[in-house]
Amino acid sequence: MDLHRIDEFAKEMIFEAGKRIRDAFSYELKVETKSDANDLVTNIDRETELFFIEKINAFAPHHKIIGEEGMGEKVESLDGPVWIIDPIDGTMNFVKQHRHFMITIGFFVNGIGKLGYIFDVMREDLFYAIADEGAWYNDSPLRKLKPIDIKEAVIGINASWVTPNRRVNHEKIIDLVKTVRGTRSYGSAAMEIAFVVSGKLDAYLSMRLSPWDIGGGIIIAKEVGAVATNFQGEKFDLLSTDTFIIANPSIHPLILEQYIEEK
Amino acid sequence: MDLHRIDEFAKEMIFEAGKRIRDAFSYELKVETKSDANDLVTNIDRETELFFIEKINAFAPHHKIIGEEGMGEKVESLDGPVWIIDPIDGTMNFVKQHRHFMITIGFFVNGIGKLGYIFDVMREDLFYAIADEGAWYNDSPLRKLKPIDIKEAVIGINASWVTPNRRVNHEKIIDLVKTVRGTRSYGSAAMEIAFVVSGKLDAYLSMRLSPWDIGGGIIIAKEVGAVATNFQGEKFDLLSTDTFIIANPSIHPLILEQYIEEK
Repeated sequence: MDLHRIDEFAKEMIFEAGKRIRDAFSYELKVETKSDANDLVTNIDRETELFFIEKINAFAPHHKIIGEEGMGEKVESLDGPVWIIDPIDGTMNFVKQHRHFMITIGFFVNGIGKLGYIFDVMREDLFYAIADEGAWYNDSPLRKLKPIDIKEAVIGINASWVTPNRRVNHEKIIDLVKTVRGTRSYGSAAMEIAFVVSGKLDAYLSMRLSPWDIGGGIIIAKEVGAVATNFQGEKFDLLSTDTFIIANPSIHPLILEQYIEEK
Repeated sequence: MDLHRIDEFAKEMIFEAGKRIRDAFSYELKVETKSDANDLVTNIDRETELFFIEKINAFAPHHKIIGEEGMGEKVESLDGPVWIIDPIDGTMNFVKQHRHFMITIGFFVNGIGKLGYIFDVMREDLFYAIADEGAWYNDSPLRKLKPIDIKEAVIGINASWVTPNRRVNHEKIIDLVKTVRGTRSYGSAAMEIAFVVSGKLDAYLSMRLSPWDIGGGIIIAKEVGAVATNFQGEKFDLLSTDTFIIANPSIHPLILEQYIEEK
């Protein structure tokens, strides 16, 4: 399998999809549609996923596709080549902010990550990786993450996980928030993962994510030495929803052991 | 007083400062200084404030200047023309993320806001307002904010205010977080204020801010109908630190009454 050829194909497809989204967006904004902004995003989401499915089917008909919008055939195993796709991660940002939403795509073979992409559509910024070859932010190589002390860390976490919830002991999350240097929340898992792999954040955690939220990101993570697991410290379940943490390797074990207690 | 002439002067000064910061930044990144990143930001912060002070002194020697870095003379009243300046709001973002930091400036006459600026240095995006004439995002007029239901609101709030703290009843903040559609946190008060005045967020609140964090923003707020007050619903104290909330007018009273209980 020629990964470089697939990488070229994937990038071209992502850039074209990005342009289509930006165009659709500016057209819709111009005509000031009376329709609900939520309908707009749903339509663009679906159209973009269909666009990816058609492209991949034409490129390699035997590749399987798992997409957020579920427009493809149902995939029940990770055998063979599998694309995991989120056409727009951060739909609320798309609607309200017209920025901070990502296309994110992972390409796996027999469950092993091979190519990962997170594309900031409005900035036209691409974070990507080729397994065992490295990771890049546009044309610049991403460096291995340097060790950091938990007290100096800035972490991505949604405020709602700091409140009483069914999934984790929020008192421990409060400890975490009080221990680190600062917290951020951007409303797009893929954006927060892109920030961790590029050292802009030191960790990001969420109590419930889907494979398409993190599929591209975990492949980039591996190349820069970021550790991405579920809250048991195991591989994220790519056929279901799961808990998720990605972190600088120097603080990943500490966060899991000291600050996360699942209910 | 010719506000348009002062506005032209202010913009030119801000764009030049932005360019200087970007240049200093890319130079420092290039030489890979061994010095602490915190020293770097402190130096650039101070140099930029001095740059503003020199420019304003040359333009209008009798104007007073309140700056975050305290490089100017001590200002003890808001009488006459006063500039309130933050050369870099979001210093942690500056250091770690190389984005999401703002120059923000307010120009007041006898305590009345006349000109307000929030400049995203890396994006080169300017949010600004001229009192009684309107507000703009680069070349586009910012519209009056449309009413929104609290359940549909996305608000900027730091996770630490959701944890037990000395200033507000955090249980009520938890209620707020659970009521709204979503929360965000960007690590720059000026950025979050810029997002509120442009409808990208519907509210932003903080338990403790300084005049330079909000001086430019509250002038823009007024032009788009956003309401900016302290937690008593009164004017923010521009000569001290204070609590701060800026919100869409349709939810400002509700948040104050129902979700904020100061200790």
